[in-house]
Amino acid sequence: MKFIYSFDEGNKDLKDLLGGKGANLSEMTNLGLSVPPGFVITTEACKEFLEKGQTPLDLELQITLALRKLEDQAEKVLGDFENPLLVSVRSGAKFSMPGMMETILNVGLNDNSVIGLGKVTNNDRFAWDAYRRLVQMFGKTVLDIDGELFTDEFEKTKQKLKVEEDFQLEAEDLERLVQKYKEIIKENAKTEFPQHPRMQLDMSIISVFKSWNTERAKMYRRRERIPNDLGTAVSVGMMVFGNMGETSGTGVCFTRDPATGSKGVYGDYLKNAQGEDVVSGIRNTLTLQQMSEIEPKIFSDLLVIMHKLEIHYRDLCDIEFTVENGKLWILQTRVGKRTAAAAFRIAMQFVDEQLITMDEALLRVSGAQLVQLMFPQFDRSVQKMPITKGIAASPGAAVGKAVFDSKVAADWAQRGEQVILVRRETNPDDLGGMIAAAGILTSRGGKTSHAAVVARGMGKTAVCGAEDIDVNLDNKFAKCGIHTIKEGDIISIDGSNGEVYIGEIKVESSVIVKYLEQGLEQVSTSLKPDEVELVTAVDRLLKHADSRRQLEVRANADTPNDAKIARKFGAQGIGLCRTEHMFLGERRLVIERLVLAETDLEREASLVELLPLQQSDFQKIFDEMDDLTVTVRLLDPPLHEFLPDLADLKVKAALTQERGQVNLDLSKLLAAVQRLHETNPMLGMRGVRLGLIIRGLYNLQVKAIAEAMALQTAAGKKPKVEIMVPLVGSYMELSIIRSEAEQIIAEVESKQQVKLPITIGTMIELPRAALTASRIATVADFFSFGTNDLTQTTWGFSRDDVEAEFFSPYLEKGILTISPFETIDAEGVGELIQIAIERGRKTNPDLHLGVCGEHGGDPESIHFFHKCGIDYVSCSPFRVPVARLEAGRAALESALIN
Amino acid sequence: MKFIYSFDEGNKDLKDLLGGKGANLSEMTNLGLSVPPGFVITTEACKEFLEKGQTPLDLELQITLALRKLEDQAEKVLGDFENPLLVSVRSGAKFSMPGMMETILNVGLNDNSVIGLGKVTNNDRFAWDAYRRLVQMFGKTVLDIDGELFTDEFEKTKQKLKVEEDFQLEAEDLERLVQKYKEIIKENAKTEFPQHPRMQLDMSIISVFKSWNTERAKMYRRRERIPNDLGTAVSVGMMVFGNMGETSGTGVCFTRDPATGSKGVYGDYLKNAQGEDVVSGIRNTLTLQQMSEIEPKIFSDLLVIMHKLEIHYRDLCDIEFTVENGKLWILQTRVGKRTAAAAFRIAMQFVDEQLITMDEALLRVSGAQLVQLMFPQFDRSVQKMPITKGIAASPGAAVGKAVFDSKVAADWAQRGEQVILVRRETNPDDLGGMIAAAGILTSRGGKTSHAAVVARGMGKTAVCGAEDIDVNLDNKFAKCGIHTIKEGDIISIDGSNGEVYIGEIKVESSVIVKYLEQGLEQVSTSLKPDEVELVTAVDRLLKHADSRRQLEVRANADTPNDAKIARKFGAQGIGLCRTEHMFLGERRLVIERLVLAETDLEREASLVELLPLQQSDFQKIFDEMDDLTVTVRLLDPPLHEFLPDLADLKVKAALTQERGQVNLDLSKLLAAVQRLHETNPMLGMRGVRLGLIIRGLYNLQVKAIAEAMALQTAAGKKPKVEIMVPLVGSYMELSIIRSEAEQIIAEVESKQQVKLPITIGTMIELPRAALTASRIATVADFFSFGTNDLTQTTWGFSRDDVEAEFFSPYLEKGILTISPFETIDAEGVGELIQIAIERGRKTNPDLHLGVCGEHGGDPESIHFFHKCGIDYVSCSPFRVPVARLEAGRAALESALIN
Repeated sequence: MKFIYSFDEGNKDLKDLLGGKGANLSEMTNLGLSVPPGFVITTEACKEFLEKGQTPLDLELQITLALRKLEDQAEKVLGDFENPLLVSVRSGAKFSMPGMMETILNVGLNDNSVIGLGKVTNNDRFAWDAYRRLVQMFGKTVLDIDGELFTDEFEKTKQKLKVEEDFQLEAEDLERLVQKYKEIIKENAKTEFPQHPRMQLDMSIISVFKSWNTERAKMYRRRERIPNDLGTAVSVGMMVFGNMGETSGTGVCFTRDPATGSKGVYGDYLKNAQGEDVVSGIRNTLTLQQMSEIEPKIFSDLLVIMHKLEIHYRDLCDIEFTVENGKLWILQTRVGKRTAAAAFRIAMQFVDEQLITMDEALLRVSGAQLVQLMFPQFDRSVQKMPITKGIAASPGAAVGKAVFDSKVAADWAQRGEQVILVRRETNPDDLGGMIAAAGILTSRGGKTSHAAVVARGMGKTAVCGAEDIDVNLDNKFAKCGIHTIKEGDIISIDGSNGEVYIGEIKVESSVIVKYLEQGLEQVSTSLKPDEVELVTAVDRLLKHADSRRQLEVRANADTPNDAKIARKFGAQGIGLCRTEHMFLGERRLVIERLVLAETDLEREASLVELLPLQQSDFQKIFDEMDDLTVTVRLLDPPLHEFLPDLADLKVKAALTQERGQVNLDLSKLLAAVQRLHETNPMLGMRGVRLGLIIRGLYNLQVKAIAEAMALQTAAGKKPKVEIMVPLVGSYMELSIIRSEAEQIIAEVESKQQVKLPITIGTMIELPRAALTASRIATVADFFSFGTNDLTQTTWGFSRDDVEAEFFSPYLEKGILTISPFETIDAEGVGELIQIAIERGRKTNPDLHLGVCGEHGGDPESIHFFHKCGIDYVSCSPFRVPVARLEAGRAALESALIN
Repeated sequence: MKFIYSFDEGNKDLKDLLGGKGANLSEMTNLGLSVPPGFVITTEACKEFLEKGQTPLDLELQITLALRKLEDQAEKVLGDFENPLLVSVRSGAKFSMPGMMETILNVGLNDNSVIGLGKVTNNDRFAWDAYRRLVQMFGKTVLDIDGELFTDEFEKTKQKLKVEEDFQLEAEDLERLVQKYKEIIKENAKTEFPQHPRMQLDMSIISVFKSWNTERAKMYRRRERIPNDLGTAVSVGMMVFGNMGETSGTGVCFTRDPATGSKGVYGDYLKNAQGEDVVSGIRNTLTLQQMSEIEPKIFSDLLVIMHKLEIHYRDLCDIEFTVENGKLWILQTRVGKRTAAAAFRIAMQFVDEQLITMDEALLRVSGAQLVQLMFPQFDRSVQKMPITKGIAASPGAAVGKAVFDSKVAADWAQRGEQVILVRRETNPDDLGGMIAAAGILTSRGGKTSHAAVVARGMGKTAVCGAEDIDVNLDNKFAKCGIHTIKEGDIISIDGSNGEVYIGEIKVESSVIVKYLEQGLEQVSTSLKPDEVELVTAVDRLLKHADSRRQLEVRANADTPNDAKIARKFGAQGIGLCRTEHMFLGERRLVIERLVLAETDLEREASLVELLPLQQSDFQKIFDEMDDLTVTVRLLDPPLHEFLPDLADLKVKAALTQERGQVNLDLSKLLAAVQRLHETNPMLGMRGVRLGLIIRGLYNLQVKAIAEAMALQTAAGKKPKVEIMVPLVGSYMELSIIRSEAEQIIAEVESKQQVKLPITIGTMIELPRAALTASRIATVADFFSFGTNDLTQTTWGFSRDDVEAEFFSPYLEKGILTISPFETIDAEGVGELIQIAIERGRKTNPDLHLGVCGEHGGDPESIHFFHKCGIDYVSCSPFRVPVARLEAGRAALESALIN
């Protein structure tokens, strides 16, 4: 088996085998660029080593042959006493894992060849410094000795010689240091530093292999979801030196600006230095502009190469180069990382330069990048000091006065103040305050807590679970370490990294949101040219995605205002209009009467009271969405959610008794709450069960919908409605609700003399619904997958309870790679979705299929839904553009595969 | 299509088409018995009528032809003025639905034929009484008139004439009554009573068809799980009369005693009477013995027929007969209903008489019958008056002093008192009291409440959800209407019907339980002959079931005592040994320390404390089950279940503050409970999650198991253990726990120099586990289906919450036919089980499969598990004999099908 590829044998498509670095070095070699010669040991060799604990049998011979070829190309010999070849031994996996694995430089130096290197470069100091670096790196990396032993020794030497800077050490000082280093090795590794250059090389290669499996590398892969069994390739190349004197140097350059996406080359150059000096940022670097003035020839050579590479790779390139005694060497290139804004701008630049197609451009941007662009952010040029860090729950940057009460938040916002709502956690009652606030900060709960989910839904900045903050609601202040935040104090929160600051930090607002709200033409008049290029790029790519995607995109919206935003952001309908928020606020009293009703008469009275309210709710939403579909979900949550907390009432009752008082209303309320109390409300009396048991409730809602539609129709509008029944587990439940609803609709139709375009379907959010989909589909016009609940029941954990407790240990142990509430669990929950689709379509080929859980706005999940044959996804209004973009990308990706 | 079968055309195997009654009448006709001639209209005709709302086109003609044949056989003509044929029109479905559908007798009488009937029978009174009955029945049944109008009129006539008894009315009185009845019909049905006999017949047939769909018939079918679409057949037969005078009569007889199963004929006879007089029990009947003395010829004819029928049907027969003027007519026969005891005894009698095989005998008894025999019952000869009725939660009869506190129950039982534990509801803390009590009575909760489930598991009598009872725990009394039960008052509860009595009712204990405990030989010495025959029959049938069954039967047992009973009852191992009960009682303090531990050191200290306790727990159980497998489930419930209730603590804390006191322990406990509080504990931090997060907990348990086994082995015993990991949802969870456990076991093995036969597997109780079974099976030696939890997550409802709230309305609406916690939901939960089996066995063909949920002891579910290819079921010790019997029957039934 061939385990070694010389650089001139590989190419950029062999990343699996040669790693990203090796493949790109090969590609550049074949392009005729001046790449130091070398060879790559394949990932296959690494994998065999990791599996069997020893290198493949003939690897040693293959190295011998490859080294001989390298020596021929370099016209030097490894370990030669006169003019020694030095090599670098570098890791390089298929996916970039910057800084995670090992590199050993200057391999080939020993007590003899160091003399030769000094002579041939006429620079003893340089030679001994190179040797010193090799011994240090080898000791630490290959022999696993604590690196501090070397750095301490280095510092001690400097102190003894009373010098400040490394370069003040002379050749003799460095020679003595090498001696010390060798003693450290002998003492700690119980072995001598190997003098044989080939032994140095072999040991270095193996240590790079091993570095694939260090803890930090494994953790990185887990986080970045890189498979564990790929292994790393090892590149062995001739060393070149940028620190040989004034005609040497080293630099990094990009073919366009990776931070903004602006055209024109961009980079840093450092004279008489090695690569690590640029990266560490110790010395002041020159811009490429400045370099062009002192090294015009090198610069113009570099420009030619940059252009060549960009055209060749058809993408932004990130290039490392070194100048050794006036000769330009290219050490590495790769497709350059870039910011979200740069991604959009550069993609469209390449389209306009006719290097790539619109499809390719679309595949080069992502929903995650678009999300970033949609949130405001803190001015990056300012130095800031957070007082604590919570969970980055909903991105963006928000500044305002701290308030600890939702009512206060609403009042202050009313009079024009910017506020940040600070709570232990939030619940549906805080909705008013959350809408009014610029941002939300909680001390408890995770990424899927109420605060986080609602905030993301609204596109509002939130930091959750900032556990250092101790919120005292009664006295309206919060403590965080030595800091105290009083009501009215200004604070700033960063939802992109979870940081919390005291005082005001400057915020930059999102031009993308302005564009979505105002349209391209109008927004462009008020923007800078760079910003115009960005919004134009986003606009073109979104429209292209729309033209490609097969998934329809709807929004989850409960209010007319949400509906309006959804429509502006490109939603093609409302896929989930919850009705529970309509029962809050003042109407809570009506619900309380409904729950406490002791006779049919009392119950019906509260229902009658609700009818005109519900009808006007629906009418306003249908008005906003005229001509587009609105999917209304009948009431889902358990009724006791509309009542006070049981423990609170018990405390009140106990205190009342203690004080010798009597409160009959309290007793009655307590009894009702106790009766309705559930040990596991998530698994209790909710969804369709509520509709089947509380006589008249669903009928009221259906009637309100039908009457609202009839009025709209009479006014010349075109309402289209889907009635969605939640939490169905068996065919009969839906069948009963459906026939009652059909009867009510028919009554309204006949009374108002209209034909109402209403379909009736169900959420699929219980495993049993998915498994028995073939029967359910016979009475459903559509299925809408409620992926949140389906995830809870399939896994048997509730979002409210488990996230804080065991998600982070589960992520650490690798049981989960990501929260299944964030990205759909394809293996489990996804399997049920596929079963439901297959069985449902078997008995009802016209069945329309949607998703209305949180996952409807998650990029990876959208790709999964596309593959399943789902018809539409529905997500929060703010996520609609993301969903449009990713749905387009999903369609392109499937086309590529098929 | 042939819609009508003359009795001589049918046979007993045509029950689908002719109904049970029609098929048996045909069978007897062909046997040459004297059955009044007639014909059957098929269920097909009924179904078509019910579907289309009208009878099949050619049914009328077929009736005409069948009627002509009947008239020929009877040698009379319907409606004839001289010697009229009268017919009965009776319902008769495939499955017996006694009293649920309609019957019309004496069809064919009108104002003219009644005169002829009077003449030919020489009995005007008889003729007018028959006509009176026809008009009444027709009015009520066919014309849907309130039956009270007729009976009121009848009573009025009797009062006017000042007579006491019906038979005192003369022919003229009855004639006048007919006139009045006809007026009632005219007034209420706006139509005349039809004089045309054929019209009477046709209308009667249709009204029988319609009676298939009355509310009470539908409810009955729902309860008995009879399909709704079978329809009823209609038998039309010549009327014969037992009330023609002293040489006439009517009776019912059984070929053996259906109450006890004793040999010898058994029945009732009534001279000069009609069938309904026997059934209504108004007049004193004669025994068959007495009848043989006055009608020796008829009796001996009857004996011949009874013998013939029993041999022919190879089963106990229930026969209706009538003697008309000295001629014996057989009106109906069917396989007789019998008590549980009779079922076992008669089945074995037939085997011994070589009429049936052991296999057939086994198919004629059921687990449900065996359960009945295992519970004690109240003396049936005593008249009793219950004060209220709750849910029959766990059968049996219990008498004892009412106590309202588990500790008191345990104390009183200790000193030899029989007690009934009375609680609002029970929780795991009541376990001690429940074990000590003779019975359990709760005012809340349903058939699957904690009290009910635990009581059934222990085979202990329980009545739950007796809502009329208002339990006052603080003051130790309960009120129920006008009654008050104080602590120490004697009460009796009947777990078979839910009745509650004040005072002592005599109890008969179960001989079957004595037999299981003592063995056949020993128990037989102390029993009466009938009882010996019964226990022998049960013994032989259980052993036969053991020889046939493919399912292994294990028991769920947590204590050495449970294990001992399980073994006696025939368990082949413990399929579920829960470890949570081992953490209660005094050890609760240790758990509290574990939960409150703030440092690793504190946590480890409490674990160290638990090790010897756990080890001795296991040792005792292994000892009882030596040489049989014990499946130990690692700790499953959330830790906060071992702590006090949050609301209670909050109340305490509020009161402490109110009183100006300080209680630091309380504050600390409250904080911990608050931290661990879960909104949905069923979906929270429990099962394997607990094991993965609380470092050392599972390791402690595994170590205790291994050490206990090592000690047993050293003592020459043969422990076999399976370690079962609960609530696994993904492969990685099990994989991590498995490798840690394997390491600990290996350590103990090496330290103690033994080889420990331990396998490691998982419960499958989450949908995701079933769906991803192919991966999980690679690290599992066995799967044990936890069908309780699997039902909860598949349906998305929790047993604790939903039963009371919506199971009964769901049963009423027909959404559920039975609680899915009682009998496995084959369509949903069962589908997941099948998916898991198929996928699991694909990657691990040696995978051993069991069930350890409540369903393991449910007859219908056992048949399902057998069909799925499950290897064993595990159920409460008390259910083990039932499971053995039903597993045997399941094997036979599959063999019959294949």
